[in-house]
This record gives sequence, structure tokens and C-alpha cells, in this order.
Amino acid sequence: MIVTVTLNPALDLTYPVDALVPHHTHRVTAVAERAGGKGLNVARVLHALGEPVLATGLLGGPTGSVVAGLLDADGVPATFTPISGDTRRTVAVVDHEDATGFWEPGPVVPAAEWSRFVEHFRDLIGRASVVTLCGSLPQGLPIDAYGVLTRLATEAGRPVLLDTSGPALRAGLAAGPAVAKPNASELSALVPQWSVTDVRALTSGTVVVTDGAAGLRAITPDQEYHCAPPAPITGNPTGAGDACTAALARGLRDRTPWPELLADAVALGAAAVASPVAGAFDPDVYHAMLAGAGC
Amino acid sequence: MIVTVTLNPALDLTYPVDALVPHHTHRVTAVAERAGGKGLNVARVLHALGEPVLATGLLGGPTGSVVAGLLDADGVPATFTPISGDTRRTVAVVDHEDATGFWEPGPVVPAAEWSRFVEHFRDLIGRASVVTLCGSLPQGLPIDAYGVLTRLATEAGRPVLLDTSGPALRAGLAAGPAVAKPNASELSALVPQWSVTDVRALTSGTVVVTDGAAGLRAITPDQEYHCAPPAPITGNPTGAGDACTAALARGLRDRTPWPELLADAVALGAAAVASPVAGAFDPDVYHAMLAGAGC
Repeated sequence: MIVTVTLNPALDLTYPVDALVPHHTHRVTAVAERAGGKGLNVARVLHALGEPVLATGLLGGPTGSVVAGLLDADGVPATFTPISGDTRRTVAVVDHEDATGFWEPGPVVPAAEWSRFVEHFRDLIGRASVVTLCGSLPQGLPIDAYGVLTRLATEAGRPVLLDTSGPALRAGLAAGPAVAKPNASELSALVPQWSVTDVRALTSGTVVVTDGAAGLRAITPDQEYHCAPPAPITGNPTGAGDACTAALARGLRDRTPWPELLADAVALGAAAVASPVAGAFDPDVYHAMLAGAGC
Repeated sequence: MIVTVTLNPALDLTYPVDALVPHHTHRVTAVAERAGGKGLNVARVLHALGEPVLATGLLGGPTGSVVAGLLDADGVPATFTPISGDTRRTVAVVDHEDATGFWEPGPVVPAAEWSRFVEHFRDLIGRASVVTLCGSLPQGLPIDAYGVLTRLATEAGRPVLLDTSGPALRAGLAAGPAVAKPNASELSALVPQWSVTDVRALTSGTVVVTDGAAGLRAITPDQEYHCAPPAPITGNPTGAGDACTAALARGLRDRTPWPELLADAVALGAAAVASPVAGAFDPDVYHAMLAGAGC
């Protein structure tokens, strides 16, 4: 099974309003609650694809219990390490124009709780075919947290797929995950105006750079690929990168050749744009895109 | 003891931000969580005054558990009836200018759960010196819900203090609570350009109309009073009305003569404005105002 690690999950609350008017009070008529965080989106997409998946990471407090309940209602198998802090919320106020986001800082995780998770992760590796490490790190964790997990999985012969940003991405890349999947702006934040040589200097693995409607570039240790969707898709881009990650994880497990694997990732990402919520995809768009995507 | 009824409590979340920018994402660096709702503010103020108080009402779901935990941490004795729905959240995004509010709709309460609360309330009446009925009604409750509770308490010889608005206020007034405490705009919403005769036609009890910095007017069945703070107070007006209600409840219990009782309510309301959070007051301002307030 594919083990998805989410160290900083969230309870995503969506408040639809007619229009956001600063310094006024808005009566929200309906609230959507969703288990959020990149890794949980990856887990949901894999589960919807019928792939065996196990979600793990850190959850705590009453908000963590709500997230666990929502994930359970989605049918995603999960085994999270409990923490003393309270899992964060994100609030997205959506009006007819766009979304306005408010992201809580999330818990501070003590070293002892991080150690407990690492032990739990060590126990899970034997059952994993592939490991995905997605999203931001909560406060209190070492910046090399993803590096630590990458080395443990890699030593056990399990390929790792890393999707994060900033210093956590830089530190993780140095540990040589099989694939890292930054988006174009996350990669540029590490190396402005990067070249292929620059990217290969960051890691011994492959880097897949997603760039929205332009598709993706893959830089392996000895090859380069570019893959774009056959037609533009309009919709909700949130979670499209997570659908790509899900496709890449499945392809890593199956040792799918790069051109086929990348076409699948592009098609699933486009199908996620066509779905109104993150962590889901439109199966019709997926199959239509898959027929047309080429690398 | 004073029994405070809160049928539609909330988990109040406050997100401080530098500036609210629509259609952008805001990283909130600190989150304040508070047990919210007018009745809980009244309970906290009475508890801070050292008055015996018992908070009751409806709480449900994970958010209801958080509210119960926060109230417990504040030291306020409570006995809520559990409901199947999830207690609502309110989000206040506070920037350097003002607050922007997002109010969730709250649970829909089935008739059977309302009946269960009424039975619980009936059991509590014998232990009550005064009952306060504060705030909005959740969906599903009869619009006369406060009327039902007012009649039960009044028949048992317990004076009722009502603070709500709209149709729930109109229906509650008809049941003749000892005191109703609308603010000026809530009363005008019922009777535009009201006269003293209009107000007396609404209820057999006393109506205390609060009007911010202008103080309050009290219209008893046979008298009229006006009472203003001795000096203007700047600060946070949220919860000032609830502090007034707390003072009125204590005064009803002690049969304090109107002029003294109203001066106390004005002073405690002003002291609540001087406190940054609702449900609290500044004791120094309270005592200074009390020395100067006259009716």
C-alpha cells in the first residue's frame, strides 16, 4: 500500500458568502468541513482510484478528532500519531469572485512527540510500497524532518515522493527522495532562474516541476521530459498538484515508464481542476485527458 | 443562584491580522478561542463578580465540547443539555481598523431535544433565584421558546430577564418577563419610533433599553428612568450589554431599588467596554463609574 504522511493536516472550513465586505458581519448559511492538507488530498485521490492507501501523520485535540472523523467518513484508512497540541483550522471565505483564506498557525510539536511519530513511521515502512511526504511542517519539528523520513524509507528500499516547499524542501531534496514535486514558484523560491544542472545539483533523485495549465517538466538524473494537457481546463486548481502526486506515487509503485507515468499525472491533475473540491477528480475528464496527453 | 440560559452558544474564534485583503490568503499567527454567546458572557461576568451562577442551554458535537471545556476553564459552573447537532463557530478577523465577522448558521434542534431541555430547565427552576434568557434561538426551536421558559419560571415565582431580538423578543415580551433588555435598535426593529405607551403595550414587565454611550432608559409599569455613565468610555462595546444584563440579574435577585440597580448596570456596562474581551470587565473602571453614575 501507499503510505501518505501528513505532518500538518488541517480542518478546512469553507464559508460561502455573497460578497466579502471588510469590517462587516457575514451570516454564513452553510459550512463545508473537510479533512485538509496536501497529504490527505493525495490519500483521498488514491482511495478514489481504488489503490490501497494508508494515511498517517500527526493529529491532536478536538480539531484533530474532527479531521480523523471526516477522513473515516471518506473511507480512507488512517493511523495517525496523537499529539498534545490542537490540529489547525483553515477558513476559506468564498464569494462570487474568489476565495479569501485564513490559515491558523497550527500546533507546536514537542520533540518527544516527533520521536514517537518516527518510531510509528519505522513500523509502517515494511508495509509500504511507496511513501509520500506532503505539505508544510508544524512548528517544533526539525527542518530536516522530511530528510529523516526519506532516509528511513530509502534505506528500507521504499521509494519516497516529496511535495513541500521552502527550507523543508531544500533539506528533503538533499536526502535524495525518488521524486520531488515542487511547483514552478516553489522551485524558483529555492533557485531563482534555475537550469537543469541547478536542479540536478539539489538532489540525486528526479524533480517533477508542475506549472499549472502549462503542464509539468520532469528532470531525472539522465533525462528530461515535458508534458502538457491536450486542452485547457477551467475550474478549481486547489488540489491539482496533489492529484499529480497521487498519480506519481502509483506510477513509482508500478515502475511505470516515465512518459506514460507523466501523462497519467498530467491527466489526473487536469481532472482534479475539473472537480470543485480538493482531493477529488472528475473521472470523465481524467479518461478524456489520458487519451490525449502525450510526453 | 442565577441561572443563565444560552440556547445558541458559539465557539468564538478571533484571528488577528495586519490587514484584511479580500481574495488573498492570511497567515494567522495567533488564535483566541472563547466560549461565546450573550448568556455565557452574562455567566462569566456574574462569576467574576463572585455571584453564584449556573450556565445552561444547548451544546452539541465537537465544537460544543470545546465550548464546554472553555467554560470549565473559566470556572463557570454549567449543566448543558446535549444536542445531536454541532454548536456553531463565529470567526472574527480583527485588523488595525475593525473586525470582520463570519457567523456559522448553527445546528437545527429537533423538537425532542428542545423538550428534553425544557424538562431540564423545569428541574433547575427550584434552585434558581433569577433566570436570564439571552441571545438568538437556534433553528428548529419554536419562536415562542423564550415565552415557554418565561412562563415556567414566572409561575414558579422566579423573575426572568430576557435579552434577545426580533420575533423571539416579541414573543418573549408577551409572556411578561420581569425585565426585557433590548438595545435601542432591537426595540426600534419591533416598534419604529416607539413611545412609552407603545413599550408598555408590549409587556407587563419592565423594559430596559440600552443605547451605547448614551446609557439606558428603563420603562417600568409605572415609572421611567434614564441613566448615563458619568464619562464616555472608549474600548470594545461587544459584551457591554451582557454586563448590563448581569448587573440587572443581580439587582432583581436582591430587589435593589431601580435607581441604584440601573446605576450599577450602567457602571458595569461601561467597565465592560473598558475590557478588551466580551464577558469581562475592568474592576477599576467599574468602581470609578459606580461612584459617578446617577439616575
